[in-house]
Amino acid sequence: MIQKLSSEQRSQALAKLNGWHSAADRDAIERSIEFADFNEAFGFMTRVAIKAQEMDHHPEWFNVYNKVEITLSTHEANGVTERDLTLASFIDSIAG
Amino acid sequence: MIQKLSSEQRSQALAKLNGWHSAADRDAIERSIEFADFNEAFGFMTRVAIKAQEMDHHPEWFNVYNKVEITLSTHEANGVTERDLTLASFIDSIAG
Repeated sequence: MIQKLSSEQRSQALAKLNGWHSAADRDAIERSIEFADFNEAFGFMTRVAIKAQEMDHHPEWFNVYNKVEITLSTHEANGVTERDLTLASFIDSIAG
Repeated sequence: MIQKLSSEQRSQALAKLNGWHSAADRDAIERSIEFADFNEAFGFMTRVAIKAQEMDHHPEWFNVYNKVEITLSTHEANGVTERDLTLASFIDSIAG
C-alpha cells in the first residue's frame, strides 16, 4: 500500500517541481499550463496520457483551447504520493 | 458572424441529441460520458480533438480516468450555435 507524503516531504518535493502548488480544497497538487494553441495543448495531453497509462496512474484534468489544468492525487492513499511526484516531474519535463 | 440559437431552436436540437442538456450557470450545452477505462476515454478525446481542430471549434472538457465531461459553447456568439450542434452530433456518433 502506497503511503501519502508527509507535509515536509511534500513541501520539499514542490520546491523541486515547476509551477505546482497544493490544491486549496483537497489533498492534491495542481498545475496550470498555457500553450500556443489547441494543437500544442492536446499534443501535450497525449504524451501525458501515454505516460499515465504506462504508470497506471492518471491525472484529473481540464482543457479549454490552449490551457490545461492538471490535478494529481493518489486515490488509494487519499493524498499525494511518490506516484504523483513522478507524473508531475514527467509533466514538467515536457511542458516546455 | 455566427448567431446563437433561439431557445426554441436549441430545445429542438437538444431533443435530437443524446444526453446533452443546457448548462445550469451559463449559455452552453453539456454532456458527461463514462467509458470502460482511461484508454477508451482518451481514445474518444483524441477523436474529438482531431474533429475540433478540423472545425476550428474546440470543447471545454474535464477528464478523470474513464469519465469525460464536455461543455460546448461558441465564444464569439456568446452562446450555443450550429457549430456546437455539429460537434455535439459528432461526439454522439462516436460515444458508443
